[in-house]
Amino acid sequence: MTGEAAFEVTEDLLLGGRVRLAQPRGGYRAATDPVLLAAACPARPGERVLDLGCGVGAAALCLHARAPGVELHGLELQPAYAALARRNAARNGAALTVHEGDVLRMPEALRALQFDHVIANPPWFAHGAASEAADPGRDAAHREGGAALEDWIDAALRRLRPRGRLTLIHRAERLPRLLAALEGRAGDMRVLPLAGRGGRPAKRVIVAARKGARGPFALLAPFVLHAGPRHERDADDFSAEAARVLRDAAPLPLDPGPERGGARNI
Amino acid sequence: MTGEAAFEVTEDLLLGGRVRLAQPRGGYRAATDPVLLAAACPARPGERVLDLGCGVGAAALCLHARAPGVELHGLELQPAYAALARRNAARNGAALTVHEGDVLRMPEALRALQFDHVIANPPWFAHGAASEAADPGRDAAHREGGAALEDWIDAALRRLRPRGRLTLIHRAERLPRLLAALEGRAGDMRVLPLAGRGGRPAKRVIVAARKGARGPFALLAPFVLHAGPRHERDADDFSAEAARVLRDAAPLPLDPGPERGGARNI
Repeated sequence: MTGEAAFEVTEDLLLGGRVRLAQPRGGYRAATDPVLLAAACPARPGERVLDLGCGVGAAALCLHARAPGVELHGLELQPAYAALARRNAARNGAALTVHEGDVLRMPEALRALQFDHVIANPPWFAHGAASEAADPGRDAAHREGGAALEDWIDAALRRLRPRGRLTLIHRAERLPRLLAALEGRAGDMRVLPLAGRGGRPAKRVIVAARKGARGPFALLAPFVLHAGPRHERDADDFSAEAARVLRDAAPLPLDPGPERGGARNI
Repeated sequence: MTGEAAFEVTEDLLLGGRVRLAQPRGGYRAATDPVLLAAACPARPGERVLDLGCGVGAAALCLHARAPGVELHGLELQPAYAALARRNAARNGAALTVHEGDVLRMPEALRALQFDHVIANPPWFAHGAASEAADPGRDAAHREGGAALEDWIDAALRRLRPRGRLTLIHRAERLPRLLAALEGRAGDMRVLPLAGRGGRPAKRVIVAARKGARGPFALLAPFVLHAGPRHERDADDFSAEAARVLRDAAPLPLDPGPERGGARNI
């Protein structure tokens, strides 16, 4: 019993058609976030990656399309989403092992493994906070259920090998809590603000860190998703840098570059 | 005894000549940071402002130039800097009361007051961390001495009235510690990244918050100091937006604008 019949499914293309994704028509629907998350994860063939809260597998399958030899695991709370993730993996020829379970009670099979990378797009809203979602599948993707944001970070760090890399995408509003949860447990932290338009506040952040590392924090220049000051056409209006990542499968390196700290004056 | 004779002093102009600032030739020298800090503080005439670690008074006097009716107080650990701050205040016609003392042992006169605003440019390096400074005056501006960054935040929050506004400028590398120290005690937090050039990581951040407020965090679009991809001339090469703030005394509002959170996709 796969649970696929529980909702109507659509087929969508990600990464310029490199990934075919079946996803519920009415629930949480993958769009740019998991594609950007996968683009920011520097996994190489032969490395083992865990997608915490993998949903229907969007980020994991984008990572497969970028780095085909990666060993992929996903953890998903909802059986119907886990079933879709398995179906999507098969369709895309990806070796994705989908584990059903909760970040608060990690399945034994996952607890036995260490990972080079953990990626996650944690639920959007704190347990008990208001959510815009009406449908239960969407609701679980938006809310934390029993697990708080700190539990997601904790579960991710526990599964990483020493110096393993954590890559998260989340609402920019929760950056202080994300950084607080990582402080002292991970280093080499980078924050990439994701802005809808140039000059606007960040809506999302990608946060990267290495378990047990001590290198300094860097706040990178924002990545701007859309061209122009406002949405003016029905078609998408991705910026050139966004189109390269979202359609042409360019990587999204979180590299602070050669210029660092130093002089007292900017 | 003013202590002014302890070092050679130069006279510099800030804010397009609106502020004349005597400062030690060899020590910590005010340049853009205190000018930007003052520009980000939305103090209005009649309000009371504390500049924590005021040095020779650069930020306080820039604030005076912007909002002449503000009641200004400064706290400075080093008597020679405090003396220069008093002399600078007199020269600029500013009512700046300079208190000598340590953030860890706030003078009684300051403890008796509540402030609408606290501004600070805390020391750059953690106690015991490496510093580039050789001269002792510069060293105190760079190092924390006994007071940690968290002590600076704590002292600032204690002196603020409820809903009073804290405005800080600091190295971007220390943003996680700044946010952690503010979490739960202040809200309506905004981070303005300050980048030397477009596309580069932030070197500084301006962090604004309101004591006891609960509004969401916002990560603003960066403020870019210099035009072009690199420094090519001997003259300064400020960006148009930086020149407006640094020379023409335009304010630097930390306003996230109308577009906030909301839609699942950016």
